[in-house]
Amino acid sequence: MQRTPIRTVLLTGFDAFGGDAVNPSWLAVERLRGEILAGHRVETAQLPTAFERAPQALRAAIRRHRPALVLCIGQAGGRSAISFERVAINVIDARIPDNDGAQPVDAPVAKGGPAAYFSTLPIKSLRAALLAAGIPAEISQTAGTFVCNQVFYALMRALARMPAPRPRGGFVHVPFLPEQVDTRPGTPSMPLDTIVVGLRTAIGTALRTKRDLRTAGGETH
Amino acid sequence: MQRTPIRTVLLTGFDAFGGDAVNPSWLAVERLRGEILAGHRVETAQLPTAFERAPQALRAAIRRHRPALVLCIGQAGGRSAISFERVAINVIDARIPDNDGAQPVDAPVAKGGPAAYFSTLPIKSLRAALLAAGIPAEISQTAGTFVCNQVFYALMRALARMPAPRPRGGFVHVPFLPEQVDTRPGTPSMPLDTIVVGLRTAIGTALRTKRDLRTAGGETH
Amino acid sequence: MQRTPIRTVLLTGFDAFGGDAVNPSWLAVERLRGEILAGHRVETAQLPTAFERAPQALRAAIRRHRPALVLCIGQAGGRSAISFERVAINVIDARIPDNDGAQPVDAPVAKGGPAAYFSTLPIKSLRAALLAAGIPAEISQTAGTFVCNQVFYALMRALARMPAPRPRGGFVHVPFLPEQVDTRPGTPSMPLDTIVVGLRTAIGTALRTKRDLRTAGGETH
Amino acid sequence: MQRTPIRTVLLTGFDAFGGDAVNPSWLAVERLRGEILAGHRVETAQLPTAFERAPQALRAAIRRHRPALVLCIGQAGGRSAISFERVAINVIDARIPDNDGAQPVDAPVAKGGPAAYFSTLPIKSLRAALLAAGIPAEISQTAGTFVCNQVFYALMRALARMPAPRPRGGFVHVPFLPEQVDTRPGTPSMPLDTIVVGLRTAIGTALRTKRDLRTAGGETH
Repeated sequence: MQRTPIRTVLLTGFDAFGGDAVNPSWLAVERLRGEILAGHRVETAQLPTAFERAPQALRAAIRRHRPALVLCIGQAGGRSAISFERVAINVIDARIPDNDGAQPVDAPVAKGGPAAYFSTLPIKSLRAALLAAGIPAEISQTAGTFVCNQVFYALMRALARMPAPRPRGGFVHVPFLPEQVDTRPGTPSMPLDTIVVGLRTAIGTALRTKRDLRTAGGETH
Repeated sequence: MQRTPIRTVLLTGFDAFGGDAVNPSWLAVERLRGEILAGHRVETAQLPTAFERAPQALRAAIRRHRPALVLCIGQAGGRSAISFERVAINVIDARIPDNDGAQPVDAPVAKGGPAAYFSTLPIKSLRAALLAAGIPAEISQTAGTFVCNQVFYALMRALARMPAPRPRGGFVHVPFLPEQVDTRPGTPSMPLDTIVVGLRTAIGTALRTKRDLRTAGGETH
Repeated sequence: MQRTPIRTVLLTGFDAFGGDAVNPSWLAVERLRGEILAGHRVETAQLPTAFERAPQALRAAIRRHRPALVLCIGQAGGRSAISFERVAINVIDARIPDNDGAQPVDAPVAKGGPAAYFSTLPIKSLRAALLAAGIPAEISQTAGTFVCNQVFYALMRALARMPAPRPRGGFVHVPFLPEQVDTRPGTPSMPLDTIVVGLRTAIGTALRTKRDLRTAGGETH
Repeated sequence: MQRTPIRTVLLTGFDAFGGDAVNPSWLAVERLRGEILAGHRVETAQLPTAFERAPQALRAAIRRHRPALVLCIGQAGGRSAISFERVAINVIDARIPDNDGAQPVDAPVAKGGPAAYFSTLPIKSLRAALLAAGIPAEISQTAGTFVCNQVFYALMRALARMPAPRPRGGFVHVPFLPEQVDTRPGTPSMPLDTIVVGLRTAIGTALRTKRDLRTAGGETH
């Protein structure tokens, strides 16, 4: 008699970049590894903050874990809330070099790919669940033009090309940790515990939500 | 003997919305009407801040003026620089009602349209030209999800469907005026004169620039 | 045989103001009432957000509880960290009416009083203790010119006029709660639990610290 | 027959600091040197961004020019408006070293001096005059704890000790120039021309205004 293997959630974080000693996305992801949430086991992968290697590492992790849900997490230094990204755009425009020293400007993520992909996470429901839990959360209309956006675009492209029923996926940005802003006065941060609880809440909510809420989450500009 | 008619630039601004008495985008556009820049005459149109009527008004103005270049201008309250938008996305998510009282949430701008369109303005060159003139300027990775983004998307879609050689076009956000922030402490603003000079510089540069600069203008998130 | 009564810490918070339904300063203070920290029992008082009544309520609470330490807590909507105020200034300049409808402009807190009082809390040590606990914390150089600054000034003046050994005291600002910023996109907030742990850490540290750390906590402007 | 010597205004700016190549305060001050405003000639002095030398240089300039009005101007990188400072506090707390390498922490500006001095400029009138001219302007409740605040405190202390009728004086912070924020995305800036017009407007208004306006200009925190 065969046992059905437990389904999985893939959670990725990045290594440190841009002069910081740590990356809160990876510290939080590490803490969640192996947890069982809504009947799914959390599998994790660290992605390099590097344009050439990150999408490959992501696709390898997807092949290995065959997840039902993929959440890629990245650091958004300066933001004050856990932000659920709405859209990935087909452009790379690096203001700083990546961890391999590459700094492409106005290059596509995927030559000939569509201009953008939308997240398939129920982002409004995720925001509502975090706010109900007292955790700062918001919808973001841009994931930037660096490795985070590239990985987000590569993720959505990979998922879009899989046969139905396709896994859902999306990108979540998290703030700096308090220790990272000690020398950056006025810059928001968030305790690691809060980030971890927020991501756990997001995973559970994503697994349990079929249809997203239709609540306003846009910006006038 | 026939005279070749002068070529035109179409400049649009919006009416006031969201409780403000004025919209700096329209005040600036009005000041530039009739000017001759790089051999083109500036034609203008005011668009209503209303989802149903704005794209129609824009398309009517394009048919009337047959411009070589279209710049749609909007107010981005809270930003501190003239910002050249990079990308329009196929979503409407209104946090406040428009001037007709409509407030769509998570609706497409164009059903079945592509997820996004990129600006065809040389946005890096425009930023460089303004900075060289001492005027605060930046690239923006999101035009929001309100009427500005909708008009930007509608513009790029209309231009993309025209026969070659297609007019170039894009969207520019401008800050509040100083008088608008008197009751909003800490909110950036920009003198109207500076906005006008900035837009004039942008139009002239767009008309004279064939190939955009490849200088970094992205964000890490 | 007489029992020495336990020493006390006085913690004050404000009622809601400016259109908000709650004030996180009071919600946090309520949660700490009755706790024993470093051998002191936490006593609490709610102050009205009203220029005429707040200083009286504060002085009455001091007379009643004879505290060894006084921390007045207030809401600083828009800030992202728990901030330890450095200085109270002798001016009231109200941008909005208080809860009694009063809106004084450029009036002194205390006619003939000194221009300012400095906090007697070990503010650098408090910040260090919170950061060590992973909680966003900062030094603030201004408590504003509304009821918070007025109460801070009134507190320091009352303490300065008491016979030695004088209780120590100061003012702490806390961010909005996540639920308060749902309609204020982009505005930082902090979970109530984090605020409570932060204040508890601050009280314990203040009671145990004799000499403040000499670490930089200033601003260039 | 003897000619009454023309009265003077003393305008000071700082040299560059903190890694910037220029200091907009000095560039603006230089442009105004020698102008006649409301019957007064503008005299200027550059102050070093250095705790030990700046107050001396200021006091020497006051002795030399015997001004009727003194405006010290400094750079407030990150602010978006010309800001009229309300209060100077008796503390130095340097987050970065000054131009001589000194970095005092929690030292007084003047041992035994009062905790603070208020500006004697009609700051509400100055703000109103700039806004009427379409120039971003605000009241600031803190000049920081670096050399700007120190010079402001030293200025007010020097003026307070002069025999009546005392010259009026105060401190004005100006934003970065656009060229300074090219590598600081999202940071506000202001064209040099706008700063110059703003300071000229401020000087003329200060010389013509006897009694300040009583309009709200405070902050809730």
